[in-house]
Amino acid sequence: MEEKLYIIAHQFKICRHDRELRNGHKPACLWFTGLSGSGKSTLANATEQELYKLNANTYTLDGDDIRRGLNSDLNFTEEGRAENMRRIGEVAKLMCDAGLIVLAAFVSPFRREREMLRGLMGGGFVEIFVDAPLDVCEERDIKGLYKKARNGEISNFTGISSPFEAPGNPDIHVRTDLLPIEKSVEVIIGKVLPRIKL
Amino acid sequence: MEEKLYIIAHQFKICRHDRELRNGHKPACLWFTGLSGSGKSTLANATEQELYKLNANTYTLDGDDIRRGLNSDLNFTEEGRAENMRRIGEVAKLMCDAGLIVLAAFVSPFRREREMLRGLMGGGFVEIFVDAPLDVCEERDIKGLYKKARNGEISNFTGISSPFEAPGNPDIHVRTDLLPIEKSVEVIIGKVLPRIKL
Repeated sequence: MEEKLYIIAHQFKICRHDRELRNGHKPACLWFTGLSGSGKSTLANATEQELYKLNANTYTLDGDDIRRGLNSDLNFTEEGRAENMRRIGEVAKLMCDAGLIVLAAFVSPFRREREMLRGLMGGGFVEIFVDAPLDVCEERDIKGLYKKARNGEISNFTGISSPFEAPGNPDIHVRTDLLPIEKSVEVIIGKVLPRIKL
Repeated sequence: MEEKLYIIAHQFKICRHDRELRNGHKPACLWFTGLSGSGKSTLANATEQELYKLNANTYTLDGDDIRRGLNSDLNFTEEGRAENMRRIGEVAKLMCDAGLIVLAAFVSPFRREREMLRGLMGGGFVEIFVDAPLDVCEERDIKGLYKKARNGEISNFTGISSPFEAPGNPDIHVRTDLLPIEKSVEVIIGKVLPRIKL
């Protein structure tokens, strides 16, 4: 029997390390968790601006964008929300693999869920607890959601009719009722830089 | 009745244009379509290497990675395949929004499917037809899939038991049976550069 020798050319691929060299930093997923009104999105945006000034390669995942696009097939049941979070985690993972520093601001009230994300992303996952007492968040009520939740117009609203399981040991913890935004950003940047250093 | 004035601080966000300035190029999605064995992945990898040399911010979407992660809940029925492709398109769109040049090598045999992707991504979508005659691809049969398809071990195999709807008017067309890899890459890079120029 004749043997055939198949020679398959080695395919050089651009790998994670190549991207790190190009970007000058490691990837990471900065996950902002906290009550509605705690300041997650504000902090994520302000942090991204600082990282941009440092010439980092960043992207902020927008929950509404994803609900309109990738997750437009999902509803808001418990199952739909869990799948929404899983897919966001998988996208964040792919983006980290692409070398980006991904910023994500989601209430993400359940410990189990955040542990799933950490498991998915490994060392790149940075849990940032954006912390303010419920009454402060409720007084801010920037989107008017607490009022609606108190009136029963929104069910399963975190802090009112659904629990927020505060992180026991977050990578970063900021109290936005005690610190001004710029100071919170300083704290975050100070803790993130050593983690993305090559 | 007392009126309350809510002053919401304007949130500056890093936008697409900021990322373009940082990267020195516009984003794009280079979509390699063609028969199994036509050379899609080889060309995508070689193209990414050239783009990397030009200091571009790139990422190659890997179908197996995505099937293991984001799309691990999907099966291989017609419906599952369509949803697989839709999600890959949405991820590519998000990555383009993040400023990346996304490279994607998928047989993607149906015109309707590729038009869906173009609709999703707008001007950033670049359809690259990786073209080689069926008999050439079948002779290469690097993964042994054609043999299995001919033996009936794989059903709905593109080119054998399922059609490949060749692009009528692709953005780029390379004949990998006539051109060596390096030449095909040259053609692709030559057509891509003007499209990603700021």
